[in-house]
Amino acid sequence: MYSIGIDIGGSKIAAGVVSEEQKLVSKKSLPFPHTGNPLDSIRTIQTLIDGLLSENRLKLEDAACIGLAVPGSIDYDRGVVINAYNLDYHDFPLCKLVGEHFPGVTVYVENDANAAALAEYYCGAFRGYSSGLLITIGTGIGGGLVMDGKLFIGGKKNGFEFGHAVLVFGGEPCTCGQRGCIESYCSAAALVREGRKAASAHHESAMYKRAQGELTRINAKLVMDCAREGDEVASAIYKQYTDYLGATACTAIALFDPEIIAFGGGVSNDGEFLLSPIREYARQYAFFKNHAKFVTAEMKNDAGIVGAAMLHLQR
Amino acid sequence: MYSIGIDIGGSKIAAGVVSEEQKLVSKKSLPFPHTGNPLDSIRTIQTLIDGLLSENRLKLEDAACIGLAVPGSIDYDRGVVINAYNLDYHDFPLCKLVGEHFPGVTVYVENDANAAALAEYYCGAFRGYSSGLLITIGTGIGGGLVMDGKLFIGGKKNGFEFGHAVLVFGGEPCTCGQRGCIESYCSAAALVREGRKAASAHHESAMYKRAQGELTRINAKLVMDCAREGDEVASAIYKQYTDYLGATACTAIALFDPEIIAFGGGVSNDGEFLLSPIREYARQYAFFKNHAKFVTAEMKNDAGIVGAAMLHLQR
Repeated sequence: MYSIGIDIGGSKIAAGVVSEEQKLVSKKSLPFPHTGNPLDSIRTIQTLIDGLLSENRLKLEDAACIGLAVPGSIDYDRGVVINAYNLDYHDFPLCKLVGEHFPGVTVYVENDANAAALAEYYCGAFRGYSSGLLITIGTGIGGGLVMDGKLFIGGKKNGFEFGHAVLVFGGEPCTCGQRGCIESYCSAAALVREGRKAASAHHESAMYKRAQGELTRINAKLVMDCAREGDEVASAIYKQYTDYLGATACTAIALFDPEIIAFGGGVSNDGEFLLSPIREYARQYAFFKNHAKFVTAEMKNDAGIVGAAMLHLQR
Repeated sequence: MYSIGIDIGGSKIAAGVVSEEQKLVSKKSLPFPHTGNPLDSIRTIQTLIDGLLSENRLKLEDAACIGLAVPGSIDYDRGVVINAYNLDYHDFPLCKLVGEHFPGVTVYVENDANAAALAEYYCGAFRGYSSGLLITIGTGIGGGLVMDGKLFIGGKKNGFEFGHAVLVFGGEPCTCGQRGCIESYCSAAALVREGRKAASAHHESAMYKRAQGELTRINAKLVMDCAREGDEVASAIYKQYTDYLGATACTAIALFDPEIIAFGGGVSNDGEFLLSPIREYARQYAFFKNHAKFVTAEMKNDAGIVGAAMLHLQR
């Protein structure tokens, strides 16, 4: 038995074969076809799967499942993507459409942040634990929570929107329409926003100089590099940013009390530079003193594929 | 079969008999003995139970359980109260001590906010639902969450500290040592704090006049009464307070997505005056549009007893 995992993103669709030993043994990808017709993406997915099957000489009847990860909200009972704005999927019967080409194979769909958490659970940082929270830091904040070995998708099964818990009441506007969400303070985009704001007020700062006065050149890596090198303005911004992440971790500890919390996304690449200040914040303020350990995510770019391929183990 | 529920509070210990039909058929209480020796409270508990058994002519061997609710943190595996500051219980083997007097009966202990949520689940506002969040508004904020028919006590089983999620990063100091916790903005004590602050700055306000200039006379009911009667200063404070509660509800919806959210405590007595602004806030800002319904708690003062008596159904 093997399973197929597909990570459908706004720029590309990545597909892979995961063996019974839970190893990603083969993968390939194609650009997401932004043609205006979401059915074109179904053909891309089918082409990718056909390719993997033939290249790896796999029989369809040996597939445990085809799992799909999408950046959006899911109707689990119907296998329908309610909304995935980057993909232009709206009330889109993804499982049924993909499955038509592969009779007899069960097709599952999951939110990509949840799939990534599942990948950590079966193959990455959460191995050996029964509960873990993955916080993926990107343009937004992706949250995936495993409790008692199961993905946590809430009482009404609408999903888990960790990034849209309120952290700063009345604060910065969030894409969701609320103000002060975790996402609007802890995303990489928030770090960039604050970095640019500070650089524009401090032309003497290393950030401003490195960007040669063009604020749009300031990205998360630049802010972090300047902070690491001791620039005062960047350090203050980064300190504030890690305090927001620390408070977010404390909220997660008070509410979910997971055994482990993993941080993913580019911001987490330089592990301890991110984890140390979060650890220190939690040591001081977490409600439970025997709280979660903090680590960086392990599955990186393959998290979506691997987690999607594991979905059959959850249903 | 019947079960015994005991609600151990800092002022009194209340005990009751709950029938197999989940009705509270008999109850009695005694003051909590603040003698400095917590073993004295064990004797009080045993006296209450002995009284209930004899008055109701119940046989010990017909008891499904003795359930205990305490305002504190629990080590579930050991049946030990880790800390209940109001009771001066610290690493206190409550189940074992109570049980010694009642051989053959299983004794359980639970946090009182969780027990109250359980009472709503089996006998109150959550009947017919499999998930619900109870937010009890008092001096602090008590949170109890039922998911899939089970009390939610986190991955490490330290408990569920809903009141200590961060709502206003860097805001008012909380008793837990953090700043800006839900508790420090949504408790009745927070409403009083803000009411007094506003009254002291507005001697022309109805709040100040009603209190005859003595700020300590301002309690949550007075602020709400003045707001209801249209006093501008009190109305502004109350609007802000319900906005905090609205944002708290939105956080709960994004994270737990329960079918129902119930508000308890004195502040919730005048149902719609509290619920309407929270509903309006959530209508505008909740991440999931098909979110939880909002109600007031039903179990009131008996919640702890009844929930404690139901603990055998959870283990």
